[in-house]
Amino acid sequence: MSAPTICMGQYLFQRIKQLGTEHILGVPGDFNLALLDEIYNVSGLKWMGCCNELNGAYAADGYTRIKGSPGVLVTTYAVGELSAMNGVGGAYAEHAGMIHIVGMPSRSLQKTRAMLHHTMKANMDHATYIHMAAPIRETHAYLMDDTTMAEEIDRTIVACVRSRLPVYIYVPADTVSVQLDAKRLETPLDLTVRNQDGTTEDEIVSSILSLVEKASTPVILADVLAVRHGGQELTRELAELTQFPSYSTPLSKGVIDETLPYYNGLYNGKVSFPGVAEGIENSDLVLNLGPLLSDSNTGGFTRDIKDDHLVLLGHDACQVKDQKFDGVHFLPILKKLVAALKANPKKYNLPRPQQAPRTEAPVLNDLKSGQIQQSYVWQRLGRFLRKDDILLVESGTAQFGMPDATFPPNVKFITQTFWSSIGYTVGACFGAMIAAKELKDGGRVVLIVGEGSLQMTVQEIGSYIRYGFKPIIFVINNNGYAIERAIHGPQQGYNDVSMMWDYQKMLGFFGAREDTGVQAKSRATKTVEELEAVLNDADFASGNSIQLCEIFMDTFDYPWRLTEQVAIGQARAKREAEK
Amino acid sequence: MSAPTICMGQYLFQRIKQLGTEHILGVPGDFNLALLDEIYNVSGLKWMGCCNELNGAYAADGYTRIKGSPGVLVTTYAVGELSAMNGVGGAYAEHAGMIHIVGMPSRSLQKTRAMLHHTMKANMDHATYIHMAAPIRETHAYLMDDTTMAEEIDRTIVACVRSRLPVYIYVPADTVSVQLDAKRLETPLDLTVRNQDGTTEDEIVSSILSLVEKASTPVILADVLAVRHGGQELTRELAELTQFPSYSTPLSKGVIDETLPYYNGLYNGKVSFPGVAEGIENSDLVLNLGPLLSDSNTGGFTRDIKDDHLVLLGHDACQVKDQKFDGVHFLPILKKLVAALKANPKKYNLPRPQQAPRTEAPVLNDLKSGQIQQSYVWQRLGRFLRKDDILLVESGTAQFGMPDATFPPNVKFITQTFWSSIGYTVGACFGAMIAAKELKDGGRVVLIVGEGSLQMTVQEIGSYIRYGFKPIIFVINNNGYAIERAIHGPQQGYNDVSMMWDYQKMLGFFGAREDTGVQAKSRATKTVEELEAVLNDADFASGNSIQLCEIFMDTFDYPWRLTEQVAIGQARAKREAEK
Repeated sequence: MSAPTICMGQYLFQRIKQLGTEHILGVPGDFNLALLDEIYNVSGLKWMGCCNELNGAYAADGYTRIKGSPGVLVTTYAVGELSAMNGVGGAYAEHAGMIHIVGMPSRSLQKTRAMLHHTMKANMDHATYIHMAAPIRETHAYLMDDTTMAEEIDRTIVACVRSRLPVYIYVPADTVSVQLDAKRLETPLDLTVRNQDGTTEDEIVSSILSLVEKASTPVILADVLAVRHGGQELTRELAELTQFPSYSTPLSKGVIDETLPYYNGLYNGKVSFPGVAEGIENSDLVLNLGPLLSDSNTGGFTRDIKDDHLVLLGHDACQVKDQKFDGVHFLPILKKLVAALKANPKKYNLPRPQQAPRTEAPVLNDLKSGQIQQSYVWQRLGRFLRKDDILLVESGTAQFGMPDATFPPNVKFITQTFWSSIGYTVGACFGAMIAAKELKDGGRVVLIVGEGSLQMTVQEIGSYIRYGFKPIIFVINNNGYAIERAIHGPQQGYNDVSMMWDYQKMLGFFGAREDTGVQAKSRATKTVEELEAVLNDADFASGNSIQLCEIFMDTFDYPWRLTEQVAIGQARAKREAEK
Repeated sequence: MSAPTICMGQYLFQRIKQLGTEHILGVPGDFNLALLDEIYNVSGLKWMGCCNELNGAYAADGYTRIKGSPGVLVTTYAVGELSAMNGVGGAYAEHAGMIHIVGMPSRSLQKTRAMLHHTMKANMDHATYIHMAAPIRETHAYLMDDTTMAEEIDRTIVACVRSRLPVYIYVPADTVSVQLDAKRLETPLDLTVRNQDGTTEDEIVSSILSLVEKASTPVILADVLAVRHGGQELTRELAELTQFPSYSTPLSKGVIDETLPYYNGLYNGKVSFPGVAEGIENSDLVLNLGPLLSDSNTGGFTRDIKDDHLVLLGHDACQVKDQKFDGVHFLPILKKLVAALKANPKKYNLPRPQQAPRTEAPVLNDLKSGQIQQSYVWQRLGRFLRKDDILLVESGTAQFGMPDATFPPNVKFITQTFWSSIGYTVGACFGAMIAAKELKDGGRVVLIVGEGSLQMTVQEIGSYIRYGFKPIIFVINNNGYAIERAIHGPQQGYNDVSMMWDYQKMLGFFGAREDTGVQAKSRATKTVEELEAVLNDADFASGNSIQLCEIFMDTFDYPWRLTEQVAIGQARAKREAEK
């Protein structure tokens, strides 16, 4: 009897299914159709069509952030894969990597260099687009050789899970039916993140332990790459165990339960609430987990922590004071650290509950009536949130305003402060809702998006409705690209967007209507009273149907963090220019 | 007195203005804002904001096709330029090149490799995205050196106009204010297409003349690159002068006035109306202008013209029978050829009016009532067209159906049969309308798009309304990606799209409403009677306001050309696989 075989297409999707994935995102195209057939042959796997590939990439990124394992995106040769590039680039920048599968012309057509549609010219190498994507992926598999296909698929998927960066699998149409060894699937992929050298890990852990033992004002600064690289639970455990004053950043907001006594605020260099920067910068031991040191995540590079007080646990390097360990991943170290502290809390004098009162976020503007203001709205929206909500906050004023809010426990916060591609959250929300469904996560999904960003990717609202999702959507309507106005040219026409759209009609256009039986409610609020009425409405807050609340604000009203960050950036640019 | 200077930003836009361009397309981002300011400092230049960059690239491509000179697109670093890639790739494939200007971080920030937003990681080369775009452009300028900026701008613009391919100009934010020699602008750019070697041109022309003299059944096959490379008028002149039986292709449809006695149809290999392939393939001299020999423009590579009967005049090579001239551009040759024929028509026995009756398009289905069918609708829509209309036909069934129609004179036909990126026409239509406005072109603009394609790029309908354009929009509503169903998996769920959108509400949502004062009319047609009523309505046909007509057709009804082309492609794939 010959060994059992399985076709490549099924092998690929079985491997993906083994990750716990239940939904495949993407857009069909004639070079991927035969491959898509195989999704239907894998029990428990479902296709989720997106309106376009950029939105699909955003959705895969959003899925990854909620699920913790990679989203899967399928696109087609050239037109599809190129449309997705910005979305994949963002997932690379922010470590929300996806498995991006691209259907290609068959190997025989590739060999003849046929002038097929989606090609750019006669006699062109069909691999041209593969080369273009090189910088936005960790690795790729180009399935040209029957004998290595299975291992190439495995290698690529493992690399995605471990690196949290995007990978590509290029599938020539004819390879879908290539028969592979089915037994191979019985060996699960080894997805564990480990360092080559356990001794180095132990050395780092013991250095940290001795620092912890001696430190008189230790703090935890938990940044976003700790979350992205699977360290969220360990981070919370470390904070709970030590009760050291703990901080988040703009990108990691919510990583530490903000209602706990040891949570002290969001650190963003000089763009922080009073007391926050001092708490960190005066500490004699900053345990900085998963740092991402981009401009908008460091108050425009104004973060100021001395190496001598710093332990930095990153995904690609760790550092204990001035000693740097390149290529060492924090995750095994954090595990060992937590275990050691747990085993001997007395030795480290744990927990050490904070003596002084925790640093509280000041109430910025306790507005009761009249025009809605930026200084009021974000803290108010924060109070609207509930435990376990998924919250997506778009680049722009929303992103710079939301750090003012205090979150209830376990809010899963998605924002793209580093890559900052406007329109991102509308696609990401679709993927996040799919992941939440897989996780049977009962929390509401709240999307906050500016009208300029919404216009970029609006069609994916139609996918929410198509698949029965019920997010609560806030549209910030303030007459254009407010973040750009804050940066340059506040009065210039290029910062305008169309003000003729009627967002009250949006859900109806996309499918929430009587004739479809999909319930929805849309409201517009221009005053605090109107907004309060909506936020206090139990039906609106229930998340039982898709709802929209438009919030009108003044064109030139910006969050203080945005104004301050812009001023810092401009002062820096001036200094650089004068050099 | 020192020489007069001008800042780089103004220099760039002055050069663009000199091309006759009046509108700049794009999306603002903080790295291009200072540059955008300079648009307002150039008299006669206007900014046209797009909803997103992919649509912006499509719009620039559409502009180029109507205006004949390059559209201009401005995007921002990383997020913007990557989003545009598929649109730029399409413009490359179909020779509708644009000048793509990308705003970047200042040179000083680039030198420090700062981890700015839109960057992908720490210490990253900010030129990474420049390398990614290499395959989709003819050339680029990266403005890092004050002393070469002016000439780099000039060189790049000239290359774009001559090659008809996209070019990139990368503008670090600080370079906008660099002072350049203003006198330079007084010397116009030399945009003329010329070959290095006039003798070769003469040799080719004289060979062609002697073939023309001897030929007994000469024909003209005018393809799309003749149009794209500025040869439209000369092509028409050649046809008029000779009155040789003349043919178009799927991509060049409309290049020859289809009402003229010497127009004999659209040649697409075996996928042609009866008599068309025979007319060409039995000819003893085929003058083939501007060929683009992709699968869907050659009936799946079934074009069959013997080299011995072929004169091929291309943009990058010419061929007379078996003699090939690489790197020779057809345009100067066509000029000389027309001049020579004009100078001595008797010698060449011109004109030679066709003796036999011209090959007529058969009436496929003269449907009078009941459900609208593909075999009826395209010829009917063809009869709806008027002289000078601009017609955009989306990839999909529309693209494969429209060749059945006969156009009135001078219809400017935009379709993307080679690159075939669905959603393209919705963006391209925006640019085409802008170009038509610049040309003071009075023709109507008719957009025919399938609902799956429309969902890709729908937001740009909002830009039509924002800027007061009034196209007539037909939405083919047939329950998903019909072109994909025809290729593979007709019943598969991946070929579905959301059927919950209500296109009757679309124009209202995007801004055509009583409260905005923008008039619009939307109608849905499910029967021939309903469609006829709309098409015969003078108000609808007037183009005096933006209008929409939804045409419902059966899910599994495909144009015959699509079915035939698919069968040819599949037979070919089978043969290749068996090799």
